[in-house]
Amino acid sequence: MMLTERVQKILAGYESDNPGTKSNLARILMNGRLGGTGKLVILPVDQGFEHGPARSFAPNPAGYDPHYHYQLAIEAGLSAYAAPLGSLEAGAATFAGAIPTILKCNSANSLSTNKDQAVTASVGDALRLGCAAIGFTIYPGSEDQYELIEEIRELAEEAKSVGLAVVMWSYPRGGMLTREGETAMDVCAYAAHMACLLGAHIVKVKPPTDALFLDAARKVYEDQKIDVSTMSARIAHVVQACYAGRRIVVFSGGEAKGLEGIYNEARAIRDGGGNGSIIGRNTFQRPKKEALEMLDNIIRIYQGKD
Amino acid sequence: MMLTERVQKILAGYESDNPGTKSNLARILMNGRLGGTGKLVILPVDQGFEHGPARSFAPNPAGYDPHYHYQLAIEAGLSAYAAPLGSLEAGAATFAGAIPTILKCNSANSLSTNKDQAVTASVGDALRLGCAAIGFTIYPGSEDQYELIEEIRELAEEAKSVGLAVVMWSYPRGGMLTREGETAMDVCAYAAHMACLLGAHIVKVKPPTDALFLDAARKVYEDQKIDVSTMSARIAHVVQACYAGRRIVVFSGGEAKGLEGIYNEARAIRDGGGNGSIIGRNTFQRPKKEALEMLDNIIRIYQGKD
Amino acid sequence: MMLTERVQKILAGYESDNPGTKSNLARILMNGRLGGTGKLVILPVDQGFEHGPARSFAPNPAGYDPHYHYQLAIEAGLSAYAAPLGSLEAGAATFAGAIPTILKCNSANSLSTNKDQAVTASVGDALRLGCAAIGFTIYPGSEDQYELIEEIRELAEEAKSVGLAVVMWSYPRGGMLTREGETAMDVCAYAAHMACLLGAHIVKVKPPTDALFLDAARKVYEDQKIDVSTMSARIAHVVQACYAGRRIVVFSGGEAKGLEGIYNEARAIRDGGGNGSIIGRNTFQRPKKEALEMLDNIIRIYQGKD
Amino acid sequence: MMLTERVQKILAGYESDNPGTKSNLARILMNGRLGGTGKLVILPVDQGFEHGPARSFAPNPAGYDPHYHYQLAIEAGLSAYAAPLGSLEAGAATFAGAIPTILKCNSANSLSTNKDQAVTASVGDALRLGCAAIGFTIYPGSEDQYELIEEIRELAEEAKSVGLAVVMWSYPRGGMLTREGETAMDVCAYAAHMACLLGAHIVKVKPPTDALFLDAARKVYEDQKIDVSTMSARIAHVVQACYAGRRIVVFSGGEAKGLEGIYNEARAIRDGGGNGSIIGRNTFQRPKKEALEMLDNIIRIYQGKD
Amino acid sequence: MMLTERVQKILAGYESDNPGTKSNLARILMNGRLGGTGKLVILPVDQGFEHGPARSFAPNPAGYDPHYHYQLAIEAGLSAYAAPLGSLEAGAATFAGAIPTILKCNSANSLSTNKDQAVTASVGDALRLGCAAIGFTIYPGSEDQYELIEEIRELAEEAKSVGLAVVMWSYPRGGMLTREGETAMDVCAYAAHMACLLGAHIVKVKPPTDALFLDAARKVYEDQKIDVSTMSARIAHVVQACYAGRRIVVFSGGEAKGLEGIYNEARAIRDGGGNGSIIGRNTFQRPKKEALEMLDNIIRIYQGKD
Repeated sequence: MMLTERVQKILAGYESDNPGTKSNLARILMNGRLGGTGKLVILPVDQGFEHGPARSFAPNPAGYDPHYHYQLAIEAGLSAYAAPLGSLEAGAATFAGAIPTILKCNSANSLSTNKDQAVTASVGDALRLGCAAIGFTIYPGSEDQYELIEEIRELAEEAKSVGLAVVMWSYPRGGMLTREGETAMDVCAYAAHMACLLGAHIVKVKPPTDALFLDAARKVYEDQKIDVSTMSARIAHVVQACYAGRRIVVFSGGEAKGLEGIYNEARAIRDGGGNGSIIGRNTFQRPKKEALEMLDNIIRIYQGKD
Repeated sequence: MMLTERVQKILAGYESDNPGTKSNLARILMNGRLGGTGKLVILPVDQGFEHGPARSFAPNPAGYDPHYHYQLAIEAGLSAYAAPLGSLEAGAATFAGAIPTILKCNSANSLSTNKDQAVTASVGDALRLGCAAIGFTIYPGSEDQYELIEEIRELAEEAKSVGLAVVMWSYPRGGMLTREGETAMDVCAYAAHMACLLGAHIVKVKPPTDALFLDAARKVYEDQKIDVSTMSARIAHVVQACYAGRRIVVFSGGEAKGLEGIYNEARAIRDGGGNGSIIGRNTFQRPKKEALEMLDNIIRIYQGKD
Repeated sequence: MMLTERVQKILAGYESDNPGTKSNLARILMNGRLGGTGKLVILPVDQGFEHGPARSFAPNPAGYDPHYHYQLAIEAGLSAYAAPLGSLEAGAATFAGAIPTILKCNSANSLSTNKDQAVTASVGDALRLGCAAIGFTIYPGSEDQYELIEEIRELAEEAKSVGLAVVMWSYPRGGMLTREGETAMDVCAYAAHMACLLGAHIVKVKPPTDALFLDAARKVYEDQKIDVSTMSARIAHVVQACYAGRRIVVFSGGEAKGLEGIYNEARAIRDGGGNGSIIGRNTFQRPKKEALEMLDNIIRIYQGKD
Repeated sequence: MMLTERVQKILAGYESDNPGTKSNLARILMNGRLGGTGKLVILPVDQGFEHGPARSFAPNPAGYDPHYHYQLAIEAGLSAYAAPLGSLEAGAATFAGAIPTILKCNSANSLSTNKDQAVTASVGDALRLGCAAIGFTIYPGSEDQYELIEEIRELAEEAKSVGLAVVMWSYPRGGMLTREGETAMDVCAYAAHMACLLGAHIVKVKPPTDALFLDAARKVYEDQKIDVSTMSARIAHVVQACYAGRRIVVFSGGEAKGLEGIYNEARAIRDGGGNGSIIGRNTFQRPKKEALEMLDNIIRIYQGKD
Repeated sequence: MMLTERVQKILAGYESDNPGTKSNLARILMNGRLGGTGKLVILPVDQGFEHGPARSFAPNPAGYDPHYHYQLAIEAGLSAYAAPLGSLEAGAATFAGAIPTILKCNSANSLSTNKDQAVTASVGDALRLGCAAIGFTIYPGSEDQYELIEEIRELAEEAKSVGLAVVMWSYPRGGMLTREGETAMDVCAYAAHMACLLGAHIVKVKPPTDALFLDAARKVYEDQKIDVSTMSARIAHVVQACYAGRRIVVFSGGEAKGLEGIYNEARAIRDGGGNGSIIGRNTFQRPKKEALEMLDNIIRIYQGKD
């Protein structure tokens, strides 16, 4: 499979990585219906950890079975499938080679009383399960943020040394951050930039609002007249914060919502130069047929057809 | 010994495990009177750690001797025997090969002032004692839950690499949880699901009540009309939360209680599709003859004869 | 040297240990005037750490010299000598082979403001100093108890792997425990049982009083009519809690006291089936001649001659 | 390339280092327009971590691209370029060999609520990226200072063993320190001295004010009539505190300010015997042409031409 | 160089150490003008860490240069020179073999808000710098005392295994201790004894006052009529607490003071059987000529000539 020029250009941005890691990035970038376009749609299923099984899967009980998500991602022609250890263990042999997988290596749960995550999987696990990448969440702003950063630092170094890619969920939370602050423009861009500084290959953040949280940042946004008025402008600013486009950045879908809201967000991500979507609950909580239709539409948006 | 079709089907759910781990799961699943049925009755004796020796063994002083529990499990034709380090060290040679053993690798005690457990044994210990599996307790909800999770993560990875199985006691406790919340339907299913996500081969939880604890979960249970009215329905829901039956889940017996209560619980576990019981105090605190009769009845229930 | 039947029987209880560890247990059990009887008198000298040098040695200044304690233990025909790192380093070559030694691997001091101990020696130290065993204190009930347990767990696994025996001082302290609770019958038996569960070869506890501390335990002691009225009955109960006699349990002498008190305690330990005494201050704080006389009397008691 | 006498003299001060480390120090000292003079101008770009991307790069958006900073440092003929992991990964291959690089191995961010930094890169990272040195920040005075010191101790030992140089940012902060105290004469000199004691090859501190913070120190400064009246006198005192000139010490530029302020500071550093400047925001927040002019002027100052 | 009888006798006290460690102890005991006498005068220069550079060196600015202290110690004919990592790195090659050095492996500073020290050097550093010993401070009584003890335990075991000697600064501080308590007779003797128990080869404590701090200890001092009335009696008691003279114990000089005070203290140390002085500020804060005269007088006192 020859890499497209677009993918070659993206890979050129990862100039320090070994051929193993580049191959795994290429596996993700060349997979599925968006393969070769530089755009990505990834299915993440870690909501069972974050919210429990019923809140995650009762609306569409087929999702209790980990094979279901593999099948959904494969049938929809997605770029990759991300999940925690047990879920990949339950399907990695059946679906070996059928879709690139990302092993989510830490997780939180709704019973927790602090803003931290537990490390739940290792680079060794990712290798034995044939994954293309490891995934890891940091909570910039949390009292535990530096421990989280030091954990991913160590995992990322090991992952790169064995040719895996590193996907970083960068979700500001805790400490001085208000609920609004977590998705404020300046905070989102900061979170995305930090993931780049930490050596992430693929950055995942939430779509930012037009709020500005940190006083010192607000001043700069106003003085420099940075456009935060539209979602596509805000996406473009996040892309800029990701080393001016040298790093892949994808956006989470957030809570379940209406189809038009989802499509408009995808259009804004596309128009702002973002690399795509990581979309979980909005996908697997719908009946499979509806989910496939929705994903087809999203893919068509990223293909520029809609 | 040829594996039964039922056991082969169960093992197929552990598709990422190496032959060593599958062999040890098979040893447990093929052992005793329920061997080959996919049902399990396991004898756990860690109450000496949790409650002290007199509370555990004075009602039936034969239990002070660790050999007694081996003998009881063997004579009753149980699937496996689980105990802490010292107790297995005291019998592992005498009863080598006579029954699969599970080394309980962490423990709490009644003198503790926090909701944590100490790591008390290693994978190396399990190997030198000829165990089939390691066991480990997590307390989802506790302030120490992420440390517990990280400890079992590390032990589980090592156990799997040397062909041992991993049994996880998932007991919600501490933090925001009330006493009632610990065994609420949503919380039990969540606890079972987390053990699966963490890569457990065998999950152990308490039989859930019909209470619902987390507000966000209650809404889903009500909206989706999830049946929590009978124990067998609740067991079925836990089985669903264990990767729709791809993982073995067994239920603890809880405090000593009347025989009919025990038998009815076993029937509900069986009817709900659960894999069996881990039953400690209700067994070893009875005189041996009574215990054997009771276990015979429980086994007959799981055999579908009662 | 042929092992006596009594010692062979005791060693049979350690059925999981390698020949190295069994040899070291045998070295202790066959040494001195009680050699072969299954009874032990051990000299521990870690009070310099716990209480400082003057409180420990000023009453008999010969004890400032670490050689003194070796000589005392050897001349008295004791089973073993236990001391911290520096004290063994100061005599291990001079007295090599003359008496089995136990390297005390953690220690507290009177200046401490919490109920913890520092690790002060390693298994490697025990090997290079020719010791037969390592010793370690846990404080069940203390806020630091799980850290202490995890430390001894790691040291014990290493010790066993290189053929050393493990002696555990199990002293309830801190947390919810009152001063009286520390030596209450139920708490002492619990502490002894926990040391067994943790894989100790030799358990050291304080002689229990007839107090009962934990409410849930008191109920069982009363319901089951467990006899706690005499010291020998209480000792027998502790022996029962030590795997029904499968583990060696010895009792500390406690604060300096009158000779008759000491002798009566030894008689009760003997009559209750305990394995002997670890007696420090009551020994080395007396002039050597007096100490030797006292130890002679204690040994005669354990020999059943008094 | 023959080393100049000046550089040979400086290297002689590092008499315990292996040839690898000396070579890397020489690479920095011999590079750029100040090569061979013993003076240094280093470009550090870690403000994206400390202040976020917009506050750092919006004034001159070219700086969002990590290649920009390499180019700026190379075109200006600087001594070295220092940046965090991701930023070096994004340019290390393109600019391999073009300028010595310093991998900043820890970082803080504006969302933090304590005075600590996270370790974000390793010595292994520095080696695979072809760096000449690692950089590390300590916060003398912070509640976390000893952990920071122990982290750099470990990294520095490893760095020296593989022939890398060690640059230490020593920024007093937190604990008893007031804002004024952070840059007080006595505190700055103390911070510089501590970096030397910790084995730094290159020390980076802020230019001190004439304030004196610690009472015990003030007394000595007054009794010994230490001249703190001019910046060059204060720089000379810091140089003295750096083992009387046996260690390289450079000064940070601090917040963006007017050109004359910058030039005067450089003159004072030069006149006081300091080794040069680490100047970030004042450089990359200006348009490239202006930045190059400014750097040209600074270099000319260090060349003694202005 | 044949060892004197006195030194052979001292070395005999270290009967468990390997020839490497004995050689390094011998290097120190045979060096300088007191070589062979069993007496020691050691120059420690870690005050730059503890108090900052100006408070340490401004009274005699030659001391800013680390070479100065080597020269001073060599010219004065001292037994050894002790300093932190950077200071030894700055002179270890120039003065290789000229005087035994002790690498101080932990340090505190005046900006700290707790009673702890940071580990600042390793055994590997000591080896590559040709040191004869490592030095380490513990603060008995501090909330961090057990962590400090565990750090030196690990370093000491490693040091001994590679043939280095271990010098322990035992300075009671923090916790329940008052300022007066830190140097009280009972506390000093306890601190010295603990260093011995921890396996130190050379113990360094402060000269004790006649105060008694711990109630339980006071009672014993009074009951046993331990003489604490004169400094030489107190020194003799500390020597007794150091395994009755089997361990070398030296005393720190404390704050700068008058010459007669220093000489009288040395006479008391000598008369009490102490092994000598570690004397820093009183030495290097004087002009070199005065310092050499003072050291000459101190050495003459230890030679018994004054």
